[in-house]
Amino acid sequence: MPQTNPRILLARRPQGAPVPEDFRFDEAPLPDLADGEVLVRHRFISLDPYQRGRMDAARSYAKPVEIGGVMECGAVGQVAASRDARFHEGDWVLGGFGWQAFSARPGRALIPIDPAEAPPSTALGVLGMPGLTAWVGLTDIGQPKPGEMLVVSAASGAVGQVVGQLARIAGARVVGIAGGIAKCAFVKDELGFDATVDHRGDLDAQLDAACPAGVDVYWENVGGAVQAAVFPRLNDFGRMVMCGMIAQYNTAAGAAATGAPPGPNLGPVVRKRLRIQGFIVNDTGWQRYAQFRAEMLAHIAAGRLRWKEDVVQGLAAAPAAFIGLLQGRNFGKLVIALD
Amino acid sequence: MPQTNPRILLARRPQGAPVPEDFRFDEAPLPDLADGEVLVRHRFISLDPYQRGRMDAARSYAKPVEIGGVMECGAVGQVAASRDARFHEGDWVLGGFGWQAFSARPGRALIPIDPAEAPPSTALGVLGMPGLTAWVGLTDIGQPKPGEMLVVSAASGAVGQVVGQLARIAGARVVGIAGGIAKCAFVKDELGFDATVDHRGDLDAQLDAACPAGVDVYWENVGGAVQAAVFPRLNDFGRMVMCGMIAQYNTAAGAAATGAPPGPNLGPVVRKRLRIQGFIVNDTGWQRYAQFRAEMLAHIAAGRLRWKEDVVQGLAAAPAAFIGLLQGRNFGKLVIALD
Repeated sequence: MPQTNPRILLARRPQGAPVPEDFRFDEAPLPDLADGEVLVRHRFISLDPYQRGRMDAARSYAKPVEIGGVMECGAVGQVAASRDARFHEGDWVLGGFGWQAFSARPGRALIPIDPAEAPPSTALGVLGMPGLTAWVGLTDIGQPKPGEMLVVSAASGAVGQVVGQLARIAGARVVGIAGGIAKCAFVKDELGFDATVDHRGDLDAQLDAACPAGVDVYWENVGGAVQAAVFPRLNDFGRMVMCGMIAQYNTAAGAAATGAPPGPNLGPVVRKRLRIQGFIVNDTGWQRYAQFRAEMLAHIAAGRLRWKEDVVQGLAAAPAAFIGLLQGRNFGKLVIALD
Repeated sequence: MPQTNPRILLARRPQGAPVPEDFRFDEAPLPDLADGEVLVRHRFISLDPYQRGRMDAARSYAKPVEIGGVMECGAVGQVAASRDARFHEGDWVLGGFGWQAFSARPGRALIPIDPAEAPPSTALGVLGMPGLTAWVGLTDIGQPKPGEMLVVSAASGAVGQVVGQLARIAGARVVGIAGGIAKCAFVKDELGFDATVDHRGDLDAQLDAACPAGVDVYWENVGGAVQAAVFPRLNDFGRMVMCGMIAQYNTAAGAAATGAPPGPNLGPVVRKRLRIQGFIVNDTGWQRYAQFRAEMLAHIAAGRLRWKEDVVQGLAAAPAAFIGLLQGRNFGKLVIALD
């Protein structure tokens, strides 16, 4: 076993879009294990848009990462040493860790993963936080019904992929908004969405063609111009599932900015009886993880659910990959594979 | 019985704020009664902000009034003639009628009113559509809990009065926003709200003082500057009950305007898990009217619920009273008393 723990720290708070200098590589000693703790050797770490918010000092739903602290993330790995009798060397686990090679965590904070059920990296994507996000938001807020029209932005991303496929399984028609020909082709041809909209083209014309009868559920991952184009198309009793607004995460003070650009006039919310609701998967999602995972595994076994990962090799590549994620340069769920 | 039916018609579609010339007085013959119909002599007709929307041609949740058509409204009155065996001359009834002295309606469209329970005009206010609106929106969306902070705009109005009192009965603390010293004093001293904010003063400073720990439920009746001041104060898991936005009903094309002023950036909806939801009382409210009325009568009997009406005499005064309503010149639930 290596004697040091390579890790990536937050060097300073970003001014707008993060740059490589906002991160710092570091090697720490391997952590000691307290009673009940487990040492996990990370095999895959998860890069997700929410981590941008943790880099800002502004108050949000979770505490910011401290300057000099390890960047936070979910990860899957294998037990390297254990002082919890339920875990043994080599066991696969999922947990909330950091951008580093090893983590020591209480056993009770870990979720065991059976690699025979699905490749372990899926515990960071379709079977992990992003998939759970899609499942919770659709179950609690979106509630797509047969024949309804659901539009999802960032459709080829980790959450968007699952949102569209689960909505189709529920009987809805699904339009995915993505950036560029390759992502749109993937969403339509590989994931089976009914239509796609390339946000680099004419949004209104494409939405007119794809959703001539309006939109019943809009899954919001991006905000900005895409939100402005979809919002007026919401039908009576439409739902807007507010999952994220990545388009503004790099503005001066992130999503918390009081100087953020204005949003839609809310008059139609009354007239059309719209429901605009935000949620954070961590609030109630993990209590329902077992049900979620069972349903998802059944969909996978039946050939109803696919996924695409964007796997980048090596911890040192994480900052550049994360910077690209915020620019939409990833293609599928972004994970870092560690040696 | 008079032989003619005085009424007020929509003369033309308003350009912005309605003016007297948008209305036209008219006398029609008394309507003939078909089998099953009831002739109702109106005693009180109800002027409400939603009627502004019916004057525009724009698509909304209800059909516009035609040019030359009778202005729509709710009314209470007494049966003048009946071809429905369940109704007899002199019975008090509530229904959807028009700005006129008599209406012929199918008996099944009428709700009997017992004048011994409460003054009949209350069937247009605290026990009618505005009260039911408050009850439905709080039950389905606002759901104030003991100790939570609810803010309601247009607090002395027909809906706002009831919203605040029902929220206090539910154990919430309640701040009412109203225009001017007299309305604020009424809301605090007569209705028992915990504090008031005069929207003619410094909104931010008054809200800082009244809601130092933020807002859990915002009941939106007005939009505009009041919405902009309250929205950033919503706490995590806050609810915004979208009942109306009277501040923009007189803009170019009313609430349906595509050129309406922008609203709040929706980033906080994700971060704070907000729920912004609109509703129309007619969707599900009247199916629950019996339960609503029973609960409200119990509150009144226990001395927990008060109301204020602004009673204007005579059908001919309706246009000016309605124009004033849209400017906030009424004080309490606006009704027109007919001779």
